[in-house]
Amino acid sequence: MFYHDKKLQYKVRVEKPNPTFARALQQAIGGIEGEIRVCLQYLFQGWNSRGPVRYKDMLLDTGTEEIAHIEMLSTAVALNLEGASGGIVDEIVGQSPIVGAIMGGMDPRHYLSGGLGAMAADANGVPFNGSWVVSSGNLAADMYANVMAESTGRLLATRLYELTDDPGMKDMLAFLIARDTMHQNQWLAVLEELGHGDITKVHPIPNSFPQANENQEVNYLFVNTNIDAEPSAGENRRWTQGTSIDGKGQFQEEKAFPRGDVPVLGPPAKEGYAQTEQLTGANSKS
Amino acid sequence: MFYHDKKLQYKVRVEKPNPTFARALQQAIGGIEGEIRVCLQYLFQGWNSRGPVRYKDMLLDTGTEEIAHIEMLSTAVALNLEGASGGIVDEIVGQSPIVGAIMGGMDPRHYLSGGLGAMAADANGVPFNGSWVVSSGNLAADMYANVMAESTGRLLATRLYELTDDPGMKDMLAFLIARDTMHQNQWLAVLEELGHGDITKVHPIPNSFPQANENQEVNYLFVNTNIDAEPSAGENRRWTQGTSIDGKGQFQEEKAFPRGDVPVLGPPAKEGYAQTEQLTGANSKS
Amino acid sequence: MFYHDKKLQYKVRVEKPNPTFARALQQAIGGIEGEIRVCLQYLFQGWNSRGPVRYKDMLLDTGTEEIAHIEMLSTAVALNLEGASGGIVDEIVGQSPIVGAIMGGMDPRHYLSGGLGAMAADANGVPFNGSWVVSSGNLAADMYANVMAESTGRLLATRLYELTDDPGMKDMLAFLIARDTMHQNQWLAVLEELGHGDITKVHPIPNSFPQANENQEVNYLFVNTNIDAEPSAGENRRWTQGTSIDGKGQFQEEKAFPRGDVPVLGPPAKEGYAQTEQLTGANSKS
Amino acid sequence: MFYHDKKLQYKVRVEKPNPTFARALQQAIGGIEGEIRVCLQYLFQGWNSRGPVRYKDMLLDTGTEEIAHIEMLSTAVALNLEGASGGIVDEIVGQSPIVGAIMGGMDPRHYLSGGLGAMAADANGVPFNGSWVVSSGNLAADMYANVMAESTGRLLATRLYELTDDPGMKDMLAFLIARDTMHQNQWLAVLEELGHGDITKVHPIPNSFPQANENQEVNYLFVNTNIDAEPSAGENRRWTQGTSIDGKGQFQEEKAFPRGDVPVLGPPAKEGYAQTEQLTGANSKS
Amino acid sequence: MFYHDKKLQYKVRVEKPNPTFARALQQAIGGIEGEIRVCLQYLFQGWNSRGPVRYKDMLLDTGTEEIAHIEMLSTAVALNLEGASGGIVDEIVGQSPIVGAIMGGMDPRHYLSGGLGAMAADANGVPFNGSWVVSSGNLAADMYANVMAESTGRLLATRLYELTDDPGMKDMLAFLIARDTMHQNQWLAVLEELGHGDITKVHPIPNSFPQANENQEVNYLFVNTNIDAEPSAGENRRWTQGTSIDGKGQFQEEKAFPRGDVPVLGPPAKEGYAQTEQLTGANSKS
Amino acid sequence: MFYHDKKLQYKVRVEKPNPTFARALQQAIGGIEGEIRVCLQYLFQGWNSRGPVRYKDMLLDTGTEEIAHIEMLSTAVALNLEGASGGIVDEIVGQSPIVGAIMGGMDPRHYLSGGLGAMAADANGVPFNGSWVVSSGNLAADMYANVMAESTGRLLATRLYELTDDPGMKDMLAFLIARDTMHQNQWLAVLEELGHGDITKVHPIPNSFPQANENQEVNYLFVNTNIDAEPSAGENRRWTQGTSIDGKGQFQEEKAFPRGDVPVLGPPAKEGYAQTEQLTGANSKS
Repeated sequence: MFYHDKKLQYKVRVEKPNPTFARALQQAIGGIEGEIRVCLQYLFQGWNSRGPVRYKDMLLDTGTEEIAHIEMLSTAVALNLEGASGGIVDEIVGQSPIVGAIMGGMDPRHYLSGGLGAMAADANGVPFNGSWVVSSGNLAADMYANVMAESTGRLLATRLYELTDDPGMKDMLAFLIARDTMHQNQWLAVLEELGHGDITKVHPIPNSFPQANENQEVNYLFVNTNIDAEPSAGENRRWTQGTSIDGKGQFQEEKAFPRGDVPVLGPPAKEGYAQTEQLTGANSKS
Repeated sequence: MFYHDKKLQYKVRVEKPNPTFARALQQAIGGIEGEIRVCLQYLFQGWNSRGPVRYKDMLLDTGTEEIAHIEMLSTAVALNLEGASGGIVDEIVGQSPIVGAIMGGMDPRHYLSGGLGAMAADANGVPFNGSWVVSSGNLAADMYANVMAESTGRLLATRLYELTDDPGMKDMLAFLIARDTMHQNQWLAVLEELGHGDITKVHPIPNSFPQANENQEVNYLFVNTNIDAEPSAGENRRWTQGTSIDGKGQFQEEKAFPRGDVPVLGPPAKEGYAQTEQLTGANSKS
Repeated sequence: MFYHDKKLQYKVRVEKPNPTFARALQQAIGGIEGEIRVCLQYLFQGWNSRGPVRYKDMLLDTGTEEIAHIEMLSTAVALNLEGASGGIVDEIVGQSPIVGAIMGGMDPRHYLSGGLGAMAADANGVPFNGSWVVSSGNLAADMYANVMAESTGRLLATRLYELTDDPGMKDMLAFLIARDTMHQNQWLAVLEELGHGDITKVHPIPNSFPQANENQEVNYLFVNTNIDAEPSAGENRRWTQGTSIDGKGQFQEEKAFPRGDVPVLGPPAKEGYAQTEQLTGANSKS
Repeated sequence: MFYHDKKLQYKVRVEKPNPTFARALQQAIGGIEGEIRVCLQYLFQGWNSRGPVRYKDMLLDTGTEEIAHIEMLSTAVALNLEGASGGIVDEIVGQSPIVGAIMGGMDPRHYLSGGLGAMAADANGVPFNGSWVVSSGNLAADMYANVMAESTGRLLATRLYELTDDPGMKDMLAFLIARDTMHQNQWLAVLEELGHGDITKVHPIPNSFPQANENQEVNYLFVNTNIDAEPSAGENRRWTQGTSIDGKGQFQEEKAFPRGDVPVLGPPAKEGYAQTEQLTGANSKS
Repeated sequence: MFYHDKKLQYKVRVEKPNPTFARALQQAIGGIEGEIRVCLQYLFQGWNSRGPVRYKDMLLDTGTEEIAHIEMLSTAVALNLEGASGGIVDEIVGQSPIVGAIMGGMDPRHYLSGGLGAMAADANGVPFNGSWVVSSGNLAADMYANVMAESTGRLLATRLYELTDDPGMKDMLAFLIARDTMHQNQWLAVLEELGHGDITKVHPIPNSFPQANENQEVNYLFVNTNIDAEPSAGENRRWTQGTSIDGKGQFQEEKAFPRGDVPVLGPPAKEGYAQTEQLTGANSKS
Repeated sequence: MFYHDKKLQYKVRVEKPNPTFARALQQAIGGIEGEIRVCLQYLFQGWNSRGPVRYKDMLLDTGTEEIAHIEMLSTAVALNLEGASGGIVDEIVGQSPIVGAIMGGMDPRHYLSGGLGAMAADANGVPFNGSWVVSSGNLAADMYANVMAESTGRLLATRLYELTDDPGMKDMLAFLIARDTMHQNQWLAVLEELGHGDITKVHPIPNSFPQANENQEVNYLFVNTNIDAEPSAGENRRWTQGTSIDGKGQFQEEKAFPRGDVPVLGPPAKEGYAQTEQLTGANSKS
């Protein structure tokens, strides 16, 4: 079963809210390359797992971590929508900030349906679709599905990194890119155990993104989210010890803990028509 | 962020596997009335929450609990698919067990795509759709969406209860029906705080299901899944103290712990073509 | 069975066409909070209704009214698309009006697929989805689904109201917001009959929208669309008499009649490539 | 705007309920060839219509009629699900009637989600999709979309006619098949006005279905659902006078009236868990 | 079975890349009026064809041609995305070219998911949906589905023609518009063989587009893509000889050959994070 | 551009039609693991390809081959639906063959919508979805998507092989399984060129299927579908020469030719209501 605390896995800061970037971030939440997909994919593979138990455990460990990534990205979307004014665009089109933001590429449903919050949809507002969740009953096929998901996922994250110059957003993405590096290696480690050849230097995908830009603390780190399990010496779990499969790091293991703080969103925007009790009580402790 | 352990929130036993019932259970996993929907709905509402913080906390507490419900149901599906032979049907149609089971109402994708595992889809194989996740930015609207989700969810669970005579399945459903009773009351408690009238005896919906059949230990119990938070005396959290909103119980609070065991699935079926390493290593400890 | 006349339920005027606003209006037509959903939801609930007949009748009455709302909004979309020029944007980007409008947030399919007409889709062009139509067989569950639909629907309408400063559009939305107030109260009245507690001051949702801005003639008025039935003294129909459930009005009943005129759209835009016979015969009487 | 009465356009009788046939009927409700599609398609084409007004009027007339067809088919589904016992199947598989019915091809969601009522979905439970609603802004393109919809729709209805030997269902389908004959001719009449060649003997599609089996009273009859408009001598409306476009009948016009009665469904099934108040008050007048 | 060569059916040139136009072109690839739909529709109709063999052959001939249309349009999208800078918009908003382009109406997934390539989706990023592929088993119904598809398809192409002033794009669209003229006539020719009336001057739809603007070489030309079949004198194949059904041309037949060249895309954009080996080896021969 | 001939890539025989198996085969046509997906995925990757040209060529070669697989499977579906009588089931339920077949697990839309033909949908009738088509702009990510697609695709094919005892169907599936073996190796060969480690014995996935059962002529054979290109000595194309990546075969190359015959379907079933001209002219040469 599952537990949570109130903090984020990694800090999420937005210096200059940007509703167009909020829309782009949705791809990493509800798109086919996004975190809901990998979260459900690893959890379903774990729940359906038959055969050696250590694979089930690992799948649930990482599936659980991915929930925290959806949380980080949803927080980032909400923060990017605060004061959805679109700055320069406003001045040009001389309309209300939200109309201006829509004209400047904002997803109109972020306001109309979400009241300036994140949605379970992609960057075009197309809803998340459960057909993307692959759990085939064959461990090797599943691992390829997972490497593929983390490859397109890391690719997406590097492109998002390119789209923003907000230092908080770049820092958050550097963390997520690093986790994708680890997860690519992690699934390849299972394939190695199943008879795959040695080090595959094609990873991390994409290899054209300067790896120095990813978070160096967590890029070869297995995060153990099981509250009952102590990180062990690794035993026969390839993904916690030795040289990483891409040959570029050393696997390590760590008991999960939050590197981020409790997220604090601003009060509801007046034009979002939250309930009055939300407006008056906003940000109060209780 | 999020954590897990290896045990189930409540025990899941299947005495006589029934692939037709596995198909029906999918509605409670990936259908519009199902657990993926409420899980993501409460989590997104929590992540997007603006205004008094105690609502955010509660939404994340219960959203986290719902992941454990998906886990229980997925385990139940996998167990119901073991030996997918369809019993009586086999004798009649004289075919392979799986063909017989498909002719007897099994979802063919449970075998073809899932290798006898659960999917993120409904009882007709229609994939889960993110459009069902409502997070509107207005607390009262969200609470009505939640009462509605738990009403149709409990209705679905009572119908599943009716469909099976497997004692393990009935016991699991009695637990889930009780949790839906609590969750209906919980969202109504927020509405009460927002100005809603007094006790609403229309609940739990459906009121025609004998409430004695639901699990009496957990039907008015708030489950606190936050690993850092001790259950308090309730303070201003209506859903942890006093008479329940339906007037039929007393609210209580409990720190989350697993009432179930570590689930154990059988080895892969030969005809599911798992990887050889899964077949030989099945059920080994490592 | 069903009938129509050529007039609108309420008048639809657009002083300054705005294709970006046309896109936003689509959410109220084909989105999950939109009118196609409530229309089909109430009609299916009515057609499937088992038990006291007066609920079936009421559901069909209001389901029929909702068709007229789709009609009003579709007319509003078509009028907002006339001369889709995007004004200020044009001057900036120096392109054809329609390209400019697309760059300014217009839905490109309004031109490409619809020839400047409305579609059965949401503000992002995601098609209406029948899974949103809830008819559960349990009257109380259905009523919560309906309160929820009218709560998110009214919330959407207040946000649309905020997005426009066109007096015609504001007037139309004030009418629709008022109808949502009534419909929230109407479904609550059924819940009261089923045992719900007394007056629930949480309504109309959102309560932060100044209720003075909604149309005061129709906000507590039951509209009887049955051509055979005279409004009665109410008998045991709670939604036609007494104080409204939100305590803010008095229920009344009225035989349906059009408050609007026969809608008149402009001739087809040349660049929409209507058939020649449409261009030459446009706006002729026959 | 729109009105209704409590009667059906044509009578709907089910002598021997058949849940497998209920599932098949869903294709005619929520499938791509079904009535929700043509209903919304004609209404949207009418609302978006630019050019000669008589086409707008006719589209709304027939779009309104189609709502009555959804109503008839939904009633037929509900009646076919009553006592969903599956007869012969029960005896064979020795299970509960509903499990037996699911094994015998029933849609499990008819019970699980609908409580034995119709849904906005096709024969496989795939939801109705708004993308099927074609309204292009070009009258000739729209008319071809309509001929195509009525051709596949009539084809579907003849196949449903073939699937059942229930006299009530055959009678209802003979009515719907006849209306599709008329509607094919009606859209072709517009095409004739737009310059199409003369009589096209390829219709009604399919031409292999014995036309004597369709209802002979209504197969070349234009049904005027406008409560304000008297059927006229036809003037320049080709679809109300002269030889039909398929050369097999004479066009006529009639003011809409119900040929069917007020539908009466049975009380809720005990195992559907309707609200108690539905069970006790079932079939009462109020 | 199927074959290809490296050249395009017709030349595709883009003088001034325009990411907003790339988005619009997606409607012609993955939209309901688009080429994937007609391609699969004709192929499935061919594969499922029962009855006279010459219809099967023709359906496969034209279904095969449509693959080449998807190829042309995908190439056009990729070329329009090269240097996705959005020109004027950049200067205004002072951001990175891609952010500027998103604010100017670009589909963000063209960058985020596609790395500046085409997708199997419509102009709003809504994925292609297999439900649009009509193959009914009735030849006449199928032919109407095909005339309808080519009518809305040609309408879409004329609107795209209107949206661009790039001479290369206009030339490509003039070719595709001409092919749609032929295909409308082709399916009508089958209907004529099945008993349809004579010349139908309503075509090509839309008739308001100056037919002189379409490519005059190919607008009444049957393209035989069967590598084994020589164009014959026509025999009983109406669509290869005689006056076209719209009365505006003479049917001819030709053995398929590429009128275009091998397409050459530019190297990957640096910010798309292609694999390093793509960047260094770009445009090399091997 | 693209060409075809009238023959199948490999022979398709059905000795005993089985509509339940036809339903299962749909997963391999329109499911996420199916042939439409890989066909469009490889073609889009080819059309969007930037960088070394030989990858573009190979992607188009194999994408073109996959069209022939859809053709084979569609033909297999049509043949399995002929005489959809369900044999044993009929005797039991004493109904019409098609009703019996629906009760025995047939997809009802195979009759209702398709007239006993294949559809662009999966085994539950859920339509093919364009979101599954991955073309990321990064060659390595795309190759992992392709290995994953061929792994789940081969897994599906082995499960279909298990479900049938029709020798014709087993022979066809042995061919398709062998092609999936080759295609897994082919994409791995590209990864090897990009820096991947050596031989990966984990393939072909699933490794528990006896490889002796797959067609031994074509399991390591690159099929060159380019009508202009002669198979060369391989040059720098790893997938045409040397030991296969799984170490179990030798790569070879062959110019594409049909191993199957022209498919011949039976005449339309009377109850499918094909057009009369199809019935009378069935199986005639012209």
